Amino acid sequence: MHILVIGAAGMVGRKLAQRLTRDGELQGRQITAMTLADVVAADAPDGFDGRVTIEAVDLSEPASAERLIASRPDVIFHLAAIVSGEAELDFEKGYKINLDGTRYLFEAIRLARMADGYCPRVVFTSSIAVVGAPLPYPIPDEFHTTPLTSYGTQKAICELLLSDYSRKGYFDGIGIRLPTICIRPGKPNKAASGFFSNILREPLVGQEAILPVGEDVRHWHASPRSAVGFLIHGANIDLETVGPRRNLSMPGLSATVGEQIEALRRVAGEKAVKLIRHEPDEMIMRICAGWAPGFEANRARALGFIAESSFDEIIRVHIEDELGGKL
Amino acid sequence: MHILVIGAAGMVGRKLAQRLTRDGELQGRQITAMTLADVVAADAPDGFDGRVTIEAVDLSEPASAERLIASRPDVIFHLAAIVSGEAELDFEKGYKINLDGTRYLFEAIRLARMADGYCPRVVFTSSIAVVGAPLPYPIPDEFHTTPLTSYGTQKAICELLLSDYSRKGYFDGIGIRLPTICIRPGKPNKAASGFFSNILREPLVGQEAILPVGEDVRHWHASPRSAVGFLIHGANIDLETVGPRRNLSMPGLSATVGEQIEALRRVAGEKAVKLIRHEPDEMIMRICAGWAPGFEANRARALGFIAESSFDEIIRVHIEDELGGKL
Repeated sequence: MHILVIGAAGMVGRKLAQRLTRDGELQGRQITAMTLADVVAADAPDGFDGRVTIEAVDLSEPASAERLIASRPDVIFHLAAIVSGEAELDFEKGYKINLDGTRYLFEAIRLARMADGYCPRVVFTSSIAVVGAPLPYPIPDEFHTTPLTSYGTQKAICELLLSDYSRKGYFDGIGIRLPTICIRPGKPNKAASGFFSNILREPLVGQEAILPVGEDVRHWHASPRSAVGFLIHGANIDLETVGPRRNLSMPGLSATVGEQIEALRRVAGEKAVKLIRHEPDEMIMRICAGWAPGFEANRARALGFIAESSFDEIIRVHIEDELGGKL
Repeated sequence: MHILVIGAAGMVGRKLAQRLTRDGELQGRQITAMTLADVVAADAPDGFDGRVTIEAVDLSEPASAERLIASRPDVIFHLAAIVSGEAELDFEKGYKINLDGTRYLFEAIRLARMADGYCPRVVFTSSIAVVGAPLPYPIPDEFHTTPLTSYGTQKAICELLLSDYSRKGYFDGIGIRLPTICIRPGKPNKAASGFFSNILREPLVGQEAILPVGEDVRHWHASPRSAVGFLIHGANIDLETVGPRRNLSMPGLSATVGEQIEALRRVAGEKAVKLIRHEPDEMIMRICAGWAPGFEANRARALGFIAESSFDEIIRVHIEDELGGKL
């Protein structure tokens, strides 16, 4: 079993490589090789016994995809993308990387399929940004994709391509619409959605965090551990049970900011909660108003995808995975 | 007012040019020039007083779009596409013309927008093929696009691009999801959906027609005259009232084949109905089962798009427009 991870230097990509290393197998077969690709050189996961190939490639170069699949990996996790904010600021770059890059990959696989019958599993990370306001709550599985960002548009287009290439038998694809990842490890960043993680992660280590929106803001979350779990399950699942609608809204936890804060109080006490500074930001409040409050995700749940069921659990996952298990 | 019609040699394109000629104006302004583009040279409409430019171009050539918009037409009707069956048989050609061709057009307009502020109205013809079975009846406006053909995939992708380019202010776009056009004038063709028109058009002129499916098959129809009306209304409508969701399922008439035949009996008598030969075709029946039975089209109706309300009316439109008003 040879696995290719594209976007392996990102947060989810790194955690995925670690998980694959720990599991040692995928689809019931031993993992003997991993190719870790990203625009910068990714780190090899600690403790992996098989062959690791590190590829620093730009997927928006037409030749990159052919090079990545030359060794015919059995499973391809495609996580590479430029983020929402950057795709919105740089229209051409967003389409070049998030749309053309993905299309080059799909085309390279199709041509290999025609040439020698190659037919890998392709697990594609999509996003809840494929939907756009006004949104019902919860959002049904059959709700249309009317994104309000170029990033969301690019993800929605790649979902359509993935389904069509899969329907034609060029590869076995599945699209995983990730919730917002919370608690995102690392430093606070400038993403408009960063505060959902900041207000938990920083207080848990005694640091202040800024909350720019009201406590009634409702959003859709899953832990990094769940996100990796979705991808692994997407690689293992029998696609006959999925049928032709290959893009699935993943399960997650719908919670208000107030509910996040209550969970923080239960897990880490009043002292932690006091580190959250309320500094309303009109622009972030306006952006937030268009975000998904939560999905039904009935299909994905029925197919065995599992997420956290409380914010206490999301916080505990962070403490276990990022803080060595203790506060 | 200068109008560009791309796909002007097709059935709807020709009728559109005739209607524009008859109206003499669009958006309340006199039509002084028309550019009629297609992969073959289109005919100039009879009786048009303004300047007509005939362009035989292949939109899948990257330079074609720039040439077509060089004279900065105020309104662009984009109807060009290869049809469903051909896009299914030739995967590369379908994506090249139906997706890349449209993207070249949108990109050429965007670059012109950046260069000199050009911002035309773009009326794009989409299709009910953007949805795929299993389908509810009626299909709500907010139903997701899960096409089961490459053609439907390409149309759904172009819808997403149209919305994103419009949202960014690169042009004023609107996507018109056409019902199946009935009665399609001309000769019987090999399209799987051809029988919906054949069983009316042929008997109306004393010819036999073959019905390959059962009379309980329900589908979604509008006349060629209504299709042209949708496009004109799409060019005239105030897009502020449409909002960011720019792709609209058009109104139409949901009818079973049996209801079509009853209307034929009322309009043309038993003699006409007797010319329909029942020859069940397993393959066509199977394809049919995945087609849209009908849409709510609430948004489009509220925005003033109008279709026929009975099959008698659809047949009478055909008699008026194609048979000189009499049987």
